[in-house]
Amino acid sequence: MATESREIHLVQRPQGMPTPADFAEVTITLADPGEGEVLVRNLYMSVDPAMRPRLSVGQALNEAMGGGALGRVVKSRNPAFAEGDLVNNRFGFREYFLSDGKGLNKLNPDPALPLTVHMHALGGTGFTAYGGLLHIGALKDGEQVFVSTAAGAVGSVAAQIAKIKGCYVVGSTGSDDKAAWLKDDCGLDAVINYKKEPIGKALRAAAPKGIDVYFENVGGDHLDAALANMNTLGRIAVCGMISGYNNDGARTEVRNLSNIIYGRINLRGFVATDFMHLYDQFRADMTGWLKDGKVKYQETVLDGIANAPAAMIGLMNGLNSGKMLVKLAD
Amino acid sequence: MATESREIHLVQRPQGMPTPADFAEVTITLADPGEGEVLVRNLYMSVDPAMRPRLSVGQALNEAMGGGALGRVVKSRNPAFAEGDLVNNRFGFREYFLSDGKGLNKLNPDPALPLTVHMHALGGTGFTAYGGLLHIGALKDGEQVFVSTAAGAVGSVAAQIAKIKGCYVVGSTGSDDKAAWLKDDCGLDAVINYKKEPIGKALRAAAPKGIDVYFENVGGDHLDAALANMNTLGRIAVCGMISGYNNDGARTEVRNLSNIIYGRINLRGFVATDFMHLYDQFRADMTGWLKDGKVKYQETVLDGIANAPAAMIGLMNGLNSGKMLVKLAD
Repeated sequence: MATESREIHLVQRPQGMPTPADFAEVTITLADPGEGEVLVRNLYMSVDPAMRPRLSVGQALNEAMGGGALGRVVKSRNPAFAEGDLVNNRFGFREYFLSDGKGLNKLNPDPALPLTVHMHALGGTGFTAYGGLLHIGALKDGEQVFVSTAAGAVGSVAAQIAKIKGCYVVGSTGSDDKAAWLKDDCGLDAVINYKKEPIGKALRAAAPKGIDVYFENVGGDHLDAALANMNTLGRIAVCGMISGYNNDGARTEVRNLSNIIYGRINLRGFVATDFMHLYDQFRADMTGWLKDGKVKYQETVLDGIANAPAAMIGLMNGLNSGKMLVKLAD
Repeated sequence: MATESREIHLVQRPQGMPTPADFAEVTITLADPGEGEVLVRNLYMSVDPAMRPRLSVGQALNEAMGGGALGRVVKSRNPAFAEGDLVNNRFGFREYFLSDGKGLNKLNPDPALPLTVHMHALGGTGFTAYGGLLHIGALKDGEQVFVSTAAGAVGSVAAQIAKIKGCYVVGSTGSDDKAAWLKDDCGLDAVINYKKEPIGKALRAAAPKGIDVYFENVGGDHLDAALANMNTLGRIAVCGMISGYNNDGARTEVRNLSNIIYGRINLRGFVATDFMHLYDQFRADMTGWLKDGKVKYQETVLDGIANAPAAMIGLMNGLNSGKMLVKLAD
């Protein structure tokens, strides 16, 4: 019995900010799984800033886009998977897909936590924040920390882990609502609304003892502001540079980089696979923090695959609060 | 018996490229050393790119400038120093000075090598190259290496150490003479004259297997070119960014920095005191390499303290070949 599945294709490369015309919804028909295959129905798909550079370079045109998703096995002819299994996968932007099992990671969700948490704080974005801050940033208890896009899915977790580690934490964000959430709910020490005040001057005032670790998601003026305030032997864990993503591919202009010389600053790009050895520790720590209410989160969930392009465009315009998800099925 | 000493003061901050009007020669009279003091006569002083940022920020106006120098104790009332002792010091830009011994490091020169070698290949610039490449850059034998200002005092040593370690080495420099020296005498695999061809395109052609370690002295377009060609998990040891030194203090514009994210590149600023534990090993290695002719060097020696400003200005314009020194006395 064939299955109809809608999926989102990239049909032209965005010039600057993505627009609806860059995407198309395509309906395909999937055969039943063959020997060794499974049919997966995606329940939720993730929309992340890091997807934007791939729209310019990497993502093929006129094919279903890739991205993180959480699905359920609905038919299985593969002994490694049973019907009903939940599987993390990289086949977002589609309702159903066939797989031989490669790239599917079974999820055993913690029943005491909402399922969607496994897609952010307790999933890839949370792990990125955890390892980026503790391993790449080599955070020490009580240090001075700056996190950009601090209300985002990664930033908000990084900022709260730094608070758990007894640090003084400054965050930047682009709205008063988000700033209030960071200050009042997440307990950050200072929050900058970079749309209301120049980040350079605001950061100097907000971080009077300088910055030991900068968790970098923005680039450009944010990075310049951080560089101007880094303490000697400071570390900059570079998770992303969203300011450049919609500007000539993935470029962002930086002018204060020579500050790293006398400050002996370490600037290091990373992806989560750099610290997989920390994964079990992360799951244990984060599960505890979530249950204890020490890590708060926000989600923006759009409904239905037809809204996936809008989710991507909205993310780039800061319309989400916290993790941006698209719900595809129950 | 008092001693007359000429010294060079900074009298105004350079706007862009330094000019003679930024400096003044001042003659002072030094008393005989008091109890615990020594009188040092500088024999050679060093002129380095890293001095330039301090002219904009750090160096006091209307005082003798600082900088590396090699002097001889000519009068001593300090039991730790005998007349005739050679002492490395940071009191360049002056003929004589009084000291209580702090900041003086006795030099026991290798008699089989010229004295001036102890001021570059076997001194601070050589050690900077050695530790920057091997410790900060974590160079592995046989890797792909790019060195900017490769004919300079630091760059030329870094490039030749990389060759000794079996690496493929690309250097950049600003004249055909220097390029020929690097290729023919130092054995580099490829040399780019960045004044004749755009560094970005030239580097791509010269480093077909990409770059594992970039020894960075320039910033700006050199750094952007390197970032566009770095291999995954590559390292950039940031020794200097001379392209920005004469432009608004110490700024240099970089646009490809986001490449460090997916490439998981590590960019690290350093100063030589970060790896003092390697100093004895450096002295042993470099002494052997110099005696074996495995590390070649060039020197540009101007004569007399009155030429110290010209040495500084000439260095910024690339008029030196190799280490820029000013000889103050025999």
